[in-house]
Amino acid sequence: MDSLLSKIDSPSDLKKLSVPALRVLAGELREYITQTVLVNGGHLSSNLGSVELTLALHYVFDAPRDDVLWDVGHQAYAHKIICGRRERFKRLRKNDGITGFPSVKESEYDAFTMGHSSTSLSLALGFSRAAALRGERKNVVSVIGDGAFTGGLAFEALNDAGQEGAKMIIVLNDNEMSISKNVGGVSKYFEKLRLSRGYAKFKHNLKKGVSALPFFGDKIVNALDLSKDAFKTVIKSSRMFEQMGIRYYGPFDGHDIRNLIEVFRAVKDLDGPVLVHVVTKKGSGFAAAEIDPERYHGVAPRSAAAPAPSFSDVAGQTLADIADANPDIVAITAAMCDGTGLNPYYVRHSTRYFDVGIAEQHAAAMAAGLAKKGFKPYFAVYSTFLQRAYDQILHDVCINKLPVTFLVDRAGVAGGDGVTHQGVFDLSYLSMLPDMTVCTPKDGAELRAMIEWSQSFFAPLAIRYPKAYRAEYGFCAPVESGKWEVIREGGGKVFILCAGNRALDIAIGAADAEIVNARFVKPLDTEYLSSKIPRGALVVTVEDNVKRGGFGEAVTAFFNDAGVAVKVRNLALRDEFIENLDIGEVFAQNGLTAENIKNLIKKSEKSLK
Amino acid sequence: MDSLLSKIDSPSDLKKLSVPALRVLAGELREYITQTVLVNGGHLSSNLGSVELTLALHYVFDAPRDDVLWDVGHQAYAHKIICGRRERFKRLRKNDGITGFPSVKESEYDAFTMGHSSTSLSLALGFSRAAALRGERKNVVSVIGDGAFTGGLAFEALNDAGQEGAKMIIVLNDNEMSISKNVGGVSKYFEKLRLSRGYAKFKHNLKKGVSALPFFGDKIVNALDLSKDAFKTVIKSSRMFEQMGIRYYGPFDGHDIRNLIEVFRAVKDLDGPVLVHVVTKKGSGFAAAEIDPERYHGVAPRSAAAPAPSFSDVAGQTLADIADANPDIVAITAAMCDGTGLNPYYVRHSTRYFDVGIAEQHAAAMAAGLAKKGFKPYFAVYSTFLQRAYDQILHDVCINKLPVTFLVDRAGVAGGDGVTHQGVFDLSYLSMLPDMTVCTPKDGAELRAMIEWSQSFFAPLAIRYPKAYRAEYGFCAPVESGKWEVIREGGGKVFILCAGNRALDIAIGAADAEIVNARFVKPLDTEYLSSKIPRGALVVTVEDNVKRGGFGEAVTAFFNDAGVAVKVRNLALRDEFIENLDIGEVFAQNGLTAENIKNLIKKSEKSLK
Repeated sequence: MDSLLSKIDSPSDLKKLSVPALRVLAGELREYITQTVLVNGGHLSSNLGSVELTLALHYVFDAPRDDVLWDVGHQAYAHKIICGRRERFKRLRKNDGITGFPSVKESEYDAFTMGHSSTSLSLALGFSRAAALRGERKNVVSVIGDGAFTGGLAFEALNDAGQEGAKMIIVLNDNEMSISKNVGGVSKYFEKLRLSRGYAKFKHNLKKGVSALPFFGDKIVNALDLSKDAFKTVIKSSRMFEQMGIRYYGPFDGHDIRNLIEVFRAVKDLDGPVLVHVVTKKGSGFAAAEIDPERYHGVAPRSAAAPAPSFSDVAGQTLADIADANPDIVAITAAMCDGTGLNPYYVRHSTRYFDVGIAEQHAAAMAAGLAKKGFKPYFAVYSTFLQRAYDQILHDVCINKLPVTFLVDRAGVAGGDGVTHQGVFDLSYLSMLPDMTVCTPKDGAELRAMIEWSQSFFAPLAIRYPKAYRAEYGFCAPVESGKWEVIREGGGKVFILCAGNRALDIAIGAADAEIVNARFVKPLDTEYLSSKIPRGALVVTVEDNVKRGGFGEAVTAFFNDAGVAVKVRNLALRDEFIENLDIGEVFAQNGLTAENIKNLIKKSEKSLK
Repeated sequence: MDSLLSKIDSPSDLKKLSVPALRVLAGELREYITQTVLVNGGHLSSNLGSVELTLALHYVFDAPRDDVLWDVGHQAYAHKIICGRRERFKRLRKNDGITGFPSVKESEYDAFTMGHSSTSLSLALGFSRAAALRGERKNVVSVIGDGAFTGGLAFEALNDAGQEGAKMIIVLNDNEMSISKNVGGVSKYFEKLRLSRGYAKFKHNLKKGVSALPFFGDKIVNALDLSKDAFKTVIKSSRMFEQMGIRYYGPFDGHDIRNLIEVFRAVKDLDGPVLVHVVTKKGSGFAAAEIDPERYHGVAPRSAAAPAPSFSDVAGQTLADIADANPDIVAITAAMCDGTGLNPYYVRHSTRYFDVGIAEQHAAAMAAGLAKKGFKPYFAVYSTFLQRAYDQILHDVCINKLPVTFLVDRAGVAGGDGVTHQGVFDLSYLSMLPDMTVCTPKDGAELRAMIEWSQSFFAPLAIRYPKAYRAEYGFCAPVESGKWEVIREGGGKVFILCAGNRALDIAIGAADAEIVNARFVKPLDTEYLSSKIPRGALVVTVEDNVKRGGFGEAVTAFFNDAGVAVKVRNLALRDEFIENLDIGEVFAQNGLTAENIKNLIKKSEKSLK
């Protein structure tokens, strides 16, 4: 690699470069990221947008002594590459390479292991308070997108930081969209800031080559080149943050390295909370991603095989179809229209579609409000992000017994997205809630049937599925709460109960066993369990979820309570976080294999006779 | 009752009264609420503060056609009394009376069953969207305290409402404190609004008897009596809400009924989101509560018996004591300093104490930040409110394996606080998290020992206890992760495993059984289970938690996985929400009684021989 990039092994190498050289490096990084992501998959648009920002931050601050936190963490590729992971980046999202999100296991430059939105301000405030208590003088920088700002957690942290006067630097990376186009009053507010005369004037000055910094307060370290007038406008438009006790500077062009460096130098070592507003372009430098950044938000790995059919597509299409005839249906997403497959629904039923921003708590509670007034809300959401709405599911939806349906996407082992995105807890945390019903489709046709059936089901409901499924089974018994489907009858001695399509994929090869599509994880099909499974049988449960509190333990508890002596074996995920990025390997490590099922049956043969 | 109040059976009776009569009624309500709460217990300060507000709201709006939502719901006593529950109010927080929070089961005037903070704006937005979709013309009013405003959920809803332009009226009941003194940048902001020249002028005008309403926008329905100058100031100071697309009116004196009525009449039927800022005095009209509103926030019922010793007191005192010698300890509360017993800690270690406002998500994530930098954070929080931080516990604390300790107070059956405050889910939702340790003290000495021990335990930890315990056992084996304590040895055939003090209280009387203090719910004491309990034994588990995913099912799963044929019986709470307000009755209804244990032992006698 005859390039500048080939010489960058850590941020200290960066600091030797001139600004023009940094610009060249930015181009190389952009090229490297694009080439890698188009092959391996990953987040493209957000990472291309934050290249110059990353270089300027590491040029000015002294990581790892100074902490740099990347909110969500899907904009940290350039950071990873220049922080000692240039070669490993070729194996992005692979076990022998690096993960797609900040990970303390990978590098001391990754200040925290993270992957969910809006956490970085709370963490930064914790870091800042720790430094203050120790009497340490250092910088804590959190880079957060405008989308992540709609998460209530970010607001809670701002509120606390403003009160405390904690020393921290918040870099608002405003690219006018998170995954889908951003929504909400705050988004409007940022737009106003961008459109303010101050910003226009500032941009104009920049174009003229004037390095202008609108600073105020008692720690002005750079000369002010801006006209007094623009300066005033900037102050005025930042009132929202100022009122909360947070000094606001901006907005600045997030692709102008020289200017960013000056800005960061100016705010470095300031006391109290500071917000630096930079405006970037998602997908910057890659034409296709600039034109359609949502499409290039998450890129699938290049693969020879045809892509598997997607549960998300089925969910969105089905919802769109049933809503044609059912005026009570409304759909809700938390900034995940595309990912959850809601696009066809949105196109046909935009008045009954609500994108609430990255705000899962509000999505669930607002759905409860709609349901209380007779509507049938469907909240399409990734399993791992639904965790954030746990209290609202319990307190607002379940206690009020409201017919909100959660379309729980990306459930099960996450694969490339890694440890922060595992959807392996939902069967447990949802099943333990009174009045909640939880089901798992075996294929697209069954998901469609479940969503159709859900129209006549008036209680809290979760339908849980991973991203993709292999193929259609070609049959689907009518959906009824708590009724399972026998996929293949067996000899009456071995029963394999499977929660969801991945479990069935594993079990389907087992000979001489009854294979059951345990499509309702809650309530269990107690009639089946009581009437079909004789004493002395071997019952194997299979699920793509942690064992504790999951489907298998519910079956074990059922037989225990009933006092029926059967041998129950639960195949599920061990009680540990999953770092492995390969789904097949995770299953193998956890004994979720056809081989293991065969062994269990073999071992039991003697007692089963 | 020869009073105005005796004639009020519904809000329509209210509408016949003159404003002077309403003032008399306010006095009667205040008297009635004070007398009842001092006997039955309940929330006093907040309810005294919102009497005039309640009367004005019901005077102007047409509930139940118009929806009135009371955020948190602990300010709704006056509402309940005038909405058909005057007599039943004498039995506040009793099964034959009424609950202390809004409940749809009690009255059609209660728009939602609720008891957690910051949910009302999301619900109101759902209600508003439902009305808009149906083409219904009605008002949705949400009354929310300034404390609840610090919850991120409220911000998420504001953000969404501002974007949508949804028709809803937000009444910000600003009493300058929620439970403790409010904190945060937003609080500062409200203070600025209160202190603004506009408010001063407005108050001045009011004193002169001028009914002045600073309205603007296209739907001015009342004449403007305010000077142009003050009008401008009001507009200016409301920029934060205006920027988010929410029209702001205020601040107004929340105890001036006539003025409130005029304000509400003016905003009624306006389009788009409107925020009415009223300033009230907590404890208004009851001198003791005015002077010390925090003390009268939650009042304990008058009782002949001496109060039981409190786990909260032990927790706060112990934390204060160990922090004397351990500089790494920090304590965090989400606006619950008093309730969680942290006062003595705060007095001695105020620099290592953080009240983050009603913001449990942020509290947990911020704790993770402090822990990552070497501190030992203790987050003292009620079980039911910890639900709100579920994602942060999992994503920030557990995935990063950080030594944050959760002091989980008010765990178990809630009693008088009712269905929204049950702390009966935590053993399940915490135990299912990898790397989480969960323990349950049997008495105050053991809680102290656990907190002391926790200083040398460097992983996520939850110590879970109800408010009070009966008495000290007088002994406490050294605390060690995953080690239980035998309270009384038995004959080797029956083993009663108890999670926490309430479980032990139930089990302690059982004769001929080994009684075990299963102080670690996770990890289980597998050594004890493997070595002490023989095949064929009866094992009874007892816990103050739902059965699903709880302690008992973990024990069942242990024996199932080990292939050891013992008879396990789980005494726990059924899979349903608990509406009953009497703890003893709940236990009886769920079979959590000494009697039931005796029966189980008796039934098993034959097989045990």
